Amino acid sequence: MSDFSKLPLNKVVRGAKRASYDRETIFQILDHHFICHIGYDFEGTILTLPTGYGRVDDTLYLHGAIKNRMLDSLLQQPKISATVTLLDGLVLARSVFHHSFNYRSVVVFGKARLVKTDEEKLTALHCITENIIPGRWNEARVPSPAELKATQVIALEISEASAKIRSGGPIDDDEDYSLDVWAGTIPLATIKKEPVPDEKLNPETGIPPSVSAYTPF
Amino acid sequence: MSDFSKLPLNKVVRGAKRASYDRETIFQILDHHFICHIGYDFEGTILTLPTGYGRVDDTLYLHGAIKNRMLDSLLQQPKISATVTLLDGLVLARSVFHHSFNYRSVVVFGKARLVKTDEEKLTALHCITENIIPGRWNEARVPSPAELKATQVIALEISEASAKIRSGGPIDDDEDYSLDVWAGTIPLATIKKEPVPDEKLNPETGIPPSVSAYTPF
Repeated sequence: MSDFSKLPLNKVVRGAKRASYDRETIFQILDHHFICHIGYDFEGTILTLPTGYGRVDDTLYLHGAIKNRMLDSLLQQPKISATVTLLDGLVLARSVFHHSFNYRSVVVFGKARLVKTDEEKLTALHCITENIIPGRWNEARVPSPAELKATQVIALEISEASAKIRSGGPIDDDEDYSLDVWAGTIPLATIKKEPVPDEKLNPETGIPPSVSAYTPF
Repeated sequence: MSDFSKLPLNKVVRGAKRASYDRETIFQILDHHFICHIGYDFEGTILTLPTGYGRVDDTLYLHGAIKNRMLDSLLQQPKISATVTLLDGLVLARSVFHHSFNYRSVVVFGKARLVKTDEEKLTALHCITENIIPGRWNEARVPSPAELKATQVIALEISEASAKIRSGGPIDDDEDYSLDVWAGTIPLATIKKEPVPDEKLNPETGIPPSVSAYTPF
């Protein structure tokens, strides 16, 4: 896969040596998570909201209700962006100044396009659902025509993207290494806890493969 | 503590029954996490980045390097916002349509103010550090005058805010309860793994209280 071009919009300014424009690296991070954060303009103030997503090739799909304010606003913009952040740990240096995080983050940019056909809407909802929990689409009742009609789907056609990745231990100033201060990292991980059946669940309905196989980001 | 007023900017439009304007609820969510997402304008495109924060009363502090592009842009805006998202689990309904997440999220709005005095800069950096890992400030070397000079600190004076919270099991359409589809939630949690000492750490330096007591959000 080819790299994304390093253009003014997606060029990482701070910590440029931690930047990547490699499509495979970027897609791996995107496919690892399922919540992105998107900023949009609401009457002159920029407001950021979390939302689920899924990816097919260079397209990121987003969805919400018809007349969803954020999606409506995104469709008005010449270009939008979506940000995915995986927090991998705390980096504790000998000085407060050099404390940091280990993370993998991606920003993708592109034009937002309203998805109009039921066929592409289903493709999008399938990929969003499967990105959250693989195998779930074939277990649950799929969207009805009325549900599809009530759902707005947007395709973000990725034209520019960048990743920023930090890993490893702290980097202190030379003169601080002699300090008697513990330094290192605290790795963080997201785990699933025991599934909680719906209280109205038929007691004979067992836990399905999607739930037993599920591993969080 | 009094509620935030429900104004056009912070009024939750979608899922209004899950909204809260209660200051205590909002502050609890803010204090639980330490990474927010902030959207800003870069030459006509809205770009969202994750960044650490800390809170003192109605002020959210952010920091970065001097000339940090995001912070510079935020200072130009009449009002900015910051979003904090805690993902508590997947909500699996009998229909794909009613799949959801359990979460606690907050959006705070306010004017960005450049922090100019070293005294307030130190207050801000102290509160950001202690919000990430309580007790760390007193263990590590505190910022020098040169480091303070190289650090830009912004105060977001919270004028409006809202929380949106979802918890509990799925809510299906009446006719779907008879389907033989497993429904329920998969709770998610963030855990810390074994701390990894820096490879240059003096082997006699033991793990400090901040690290042993640390619990993630």
